[in-house]
Amino acid sequence: MRIRKKIWADEELKTNERLVENPKIYKGRWHEYFKNDNPIHLEIGCGKGRFSTTMANQNPNVNYIAMERQTQVMVTALKKARETNAPVGFIIEDVANLPEYFEAGEVKRLYINFCDPWPRKKKWAKRRLTHANFLALYETLFGAEGEVFFKTDNKILFEFSLNEFSNQGWRLQNISLDLHKSDYEGNVMTEYEQKFSGNGFPIYRCEAKFTKS
Amino acid sequence: MRIRKKIWADEELKTNERLVENPKIYKGRWHEYFKNDNPIHLEIGCGKGRFSTTMANQNPNVNYIAMERQTQVMVTALKKARETNAPVGFIIEDVANLPEYFEAGEVKRLYINFCDPWPRKKKWAKRRLTHANFLALYETLFGAEGEVFFKTDNKILFEFSLNEFSNQGWRLQNISLDLHKSDYEGNVMTEYEQKFSGNGFPIYRCEAKFTKS
Repeated sequence: MRIRKKIWADEELKTNERLVENPKIYKGRWHEYFKNDNPIHLEIGCGKGRFSTTMANQNPNVNYIAMERQTQVMVTALKKARETNAPVGFIIEDVANLPEYFEAGEVKRLYINFCDPWPRKKKWAKRRLTHANFLALYETLFGAEGEVFFKTDNKILFEFSLNEFSNQGWRLQNISLDLHKSDYEGNVMTEYEQKFSGNGFPIYRCEAKFTKS
Repeated sequence: MRIRKKIWADEELKTNERLVENPKIYKGRWHEYFKNDNPIHLEIGCGKGRFSTTMANQNPNVNYIAMERQTQVMVTALKKARETNAPVGFIIEDVANLPEYFEAGEVKRLYINFCDPWPRKKKWAKRRLTHANFLALYETLFGAEGEVFFKTDNKILFEFSLNEFSNQGWRLQNISLDLHKSDYEGNVMTEYEQKFSGNGFPIYRCEAKFTKS
């Protein structure tokens, strides 16, 4: 991080009230944090925050929480949310710790946008956020039911993800092999998506619904 | 059909014992036709027959039936099966009539390879062999359970098909967005697939399993 950025970044981290410094204390009590009973939608790996801040401003009846493990990226998301007055809660943590922050049934929907495809090595597949191990983790957040809305520009990751969802008994819906040319309405682009889609490669998207049997 | 072809075609149709002229009489009694109790796998739209004839010679414990509604195409399939001694039963009929030829539970697997994508007009979607109406028809053949193995080179048809299978509650498996570069082993190419894949476009494939609830 450059020095100049570091100064405002430290300030942003210190003063932005959207940053939830100790998410553990809200486990089972997120309605107290948001002061309502709206459903919680959680974005994993929110990057610079465009997706969640836009969604939050468009959908006042949903509570958005955005998670990102890289602090230097998160400060940009925090700044964006402050400037657009977006009611998003931000968590700087790793996805593996999610069950420490949410009780079963407390999260209704997860967004995973353009996560690391972990290509090349087969043993890296376990690190993909749609690997069966992660799906099992998400199930613990959902309780009776929940869903993942997933986007990627990586064909191999998308194919892998479709199979993982399906093999784990999740129901796939609204699969798109070229999102920007599809009938899907209301797509909110991430920073990466906007930049990337300019070069003509397709964006893949699907929804996967989990229902406890 | 050219005159020369017409002569051997007529002969093939008359004399090739693999052609099942009146498939209705075998409804519920295909084991009598095949003289065994092996499971029946049915290819819809077999074209020139390479797929089913090769599969039949590779898998002696499965009974293959190949269906094609265009007589002038089917004669080539019949000739191929005769020359390679492939134990395939051929039916020149339309898919809509399938329930007249098979009892519930009599077909275990359907192969649909490179069927007409019916592009351009939205109302044509009903003609696609993976449309929900056709899936409902296939379900009547399967009884308690069955599966469709599907290949296409058409991205829009593949996307459509994934959604139709999933929306009808079928379980997707072994989805491949680039079959010829995948780990899938034992792929038997159709005539069309061999010709088409040379130009570098991907082949899409999936399996979809139906289980009666």
